[in-house]
Amino acid sequence: MVHPRVLRALSMPLIGHLDQAFLGVMNDIQTLLRGVFETNNRFTIAVSGTGSAGMEASIVNIVEPSDAVIVGVNGVFGTRWASAVERCGGKAIRVEAPWGQVIDPAAIEQALIRSGPVKAVAIVQAETSTGAWQPLEPIATLCRKHDALFLVDAVTSLGGIPVEVDRWGIDVCYSGTQKCLSCPPGLSPFTLSDRALTAIKARRSPCQSWYFDMTLIEDYWAEGTRAYHHTAPISMLYALREALRLVEEEGLPARFARHQLNSEALLAGLAQLGLLPLPQAGHRLPMLTCVTVPSHIPEAEIRMNLLSTYGIEIGGGLGPLKGKVWRIGLMGESSTEAHVLTLLNALEELFIRQGWLSTPGVALQAAARIYSRMAS
Amino acid sequence: MVHPRVLRALSMPLIGHLDQAFLGVMNDIQTLLRGVFETNNRFTIAVSGTGSAGMEASIVNIVEPSDAVIVGVNGVFGTRWASAVERCGGKAIRVEAPWGQVIDPAAIEQALIRSGPVKAVAIVQAETSTGAWQPLEPIATLCRKHDALFLVDAVTSLGGIPVEVDRWGIDVCYSGTQKCLSCPPGLSPFTLSDRALTAIKARRSPCQSWYFDMTLIEDYWAEGTRAYHHTAPISMLYALREALRLVEEEGLPARFARHQLNSEALLAGLAQLGLLPLPQAGHRLPMLTCVTVPSHIPEAEIRMNLLSTYGIEIGGGLGPLKGKVWRIGLMGESSTEAHVLTLLNALEELFIRQGWLSTPGVALQAAARIYSRMAS
Repeated sequence: MVHPRVLRALSMPLIGHLDQAFLGVMNDIQTLLRGVFETNNRFTIAVSGTGSAGMEASIVNIVEPSDAVIVGVNGVFGTRWASAVERCGGKAIRVEAPWGQVIDPAAIEQALIRSGPVKAVAIVQAETSTGAWQPLEPIATLCRKHDALFLVDAVTSLGGIPVEVDRWGIDVCYSGTQKCLSCPPGLSPFTLSDRALTAIKARRSPCQSWYFDMTLIEDYWAEGTRAYHHTAPISMLYALREALRLVEEEGLPARFARHQLNSEALLAGLAQLGLLPLPQAGHRLPMLTCVTVPSHIPEAEIRMNLLSTYGIEIGGGLGPLKGKVWRIGLMGESSTEAHVLTLLNALEELFIRQGWLSTPGVALQAAARIYSRMAS
Repeated sequence: MVHPRVLRALSMPLIGHLDQAFLGVMNDIQTLLRGVFETNNRFTIAVSGTGSAGMEASIVNIVEPSDAVIVGVNGVFGTRWASAVERCGGKAIRVEAPWGQVIDPAAIEQALIRSGPVKAVAIVQAETSTGAWQPLEPIATLCRKHDALFLVDAVTSLGGIPVEVDRWGIDVCYSGTQKCLSCPPGLSPFTLSDRALTAIKARRSPCQSWYFDMTLIEDYWAEGTRAYHHTAPISMLYALREALRLVEEEGLPARFARHQLNSEALLAGLAQLGLLPLPQAGHRLPMLTCVTVPSHIPEAEIRMNLLSTYGIEIGGGLGPLKGKVWRIGLMGESSTEAHVLTLLNALEELFIRQGWLSTPGVALQAAARIYSRMAS
């Protein structure tokens, strides 16, 4: 869901992308993005592509042929990142964990010790394919100790849980607009630490991508220079500015608390239906709840029914989790009590009709208990 | 300028990018894009990035390390393309012409004969930096003869002059949305011939880009497969569909004639002010009029004045043409009699105030003569 103010911003008449007035929009976006990334990084922009473009940009700028990169792989997005490293001529050292679990910092440390010089460590904070919430601070500390850059995928996390770029010491961090920022998809917020910028400027070979070359893009976003690189996606940037203003108005602490509350209520309700979270306790993302579906439930059929009868779309499992889990997003504008209750009620109806549940209202009641506890 | 229907489409509520209803939007776009590209190519999509992303995608999919590519260089965009080839490990063979002139097919033929095997020939149809209109058919014939793929940059041309992909034999063609299609920037229409697809599938090495890998993107756009690759920029695709519907409603011949007429009227008026076209006769783009500015005119000052006093934005020269030319866009929705007359009147006012023109109305009169001739 996107706020009406964002939809209205999208439909504003266009101005030239090098027009003075538009440069103001770009400045605003940089300032607001620094707020959500909790960073003072001068280089904080929106890449003109989706979150996947941010992933690619993070690699092609940092990795040179034969550079080693440790990649945490515990879901779809870690796998992709490793592929991006290899397409770049780099060596991807995969540190794996079962899908649904988080990467053990000790395993990262072992890899750092064993592998010889490592250019970077790449970690997904919020694995959208499993709902696992990866702690970042211990890995950041290891990166500093072993002189490796720290790359973080915050596509699903930014605006929903803390992403403290400066305090934790993240060097490259990117996100997507369509998750907890509640802006349409199409841009990738992206920030680089001075350490990362220094590494980029010390490259021996040019970036293999012209479109994602941050040394060129830097001159386009930098006040005073504004050298034409490519044409900025004007309407999408209008929308992103408005979405970021909404985040700022709510405030990050309130926004994180809202995501947490609705997620707890959802989990309490789902538990009454026998749907238990895949990730271990303490590592469950509030914006993406992933629950194991018992084998007697024809999961695809129920999902179709939710969509066609109730107008509710939830995700199925990807890769090894196909047919085994549901992934329920409560992101940004969509993280509401109304969404939690509507979904639980719909599931109760479907479960009662199938004979998997006898007492109506138990899931709703469990959710209500969470909401009232928090209100007291 | 963007049509109000396109702005309204942009602000439609979002649906999931894998939702059945959204797949219908993608199908519509493919069909409508085949219309403007005048192609039956099954592989006809919109890349999730700007026109520059289309340029990069055209290279990273076709070119493998050490492949030779002949690139026509007669302006900014040819230069960029050559850089993209080199960043890809390919060998760019530049065939140059002075800025403002077109590439001589004989020079391409010589390069094809001299260079040994050439993977592709890359030509910009509409050089936005110079206003030159490059004829494509003779080069297409040479490509067939020498078994090279034919790559065409149609960023500024598509929807304003003919881009006959199938009849001419173009193998890879990309465009941008913000030029003659009058949709906001952010997407790149992109089509591949079967010959190009065969070459891509016969690659010895994987595409260096994951984001632009057409073998993956093909599965995302293909009906029946719809395999998740990246999240489509939903709002932008709504907008593109509406913009393409407007093109279809007007019809390509009428749209081309409109661009031609307004360009002729503009040129007739500008000639009265001593502003003569840079490109040679017969090679002047109707959507981008590039005129030489006499040295006594402080061109940047006049452009600033046009913007601040009259709200009219025209472009200055790039690269070697900096300070020497004006580039006036009349693209898609912006190619109107009202724009032509308003600009000519503003220029007349400014020129009279400076003493460079004595009789008011001469430029307007010259334009009016073109309009009345065409009406009779």
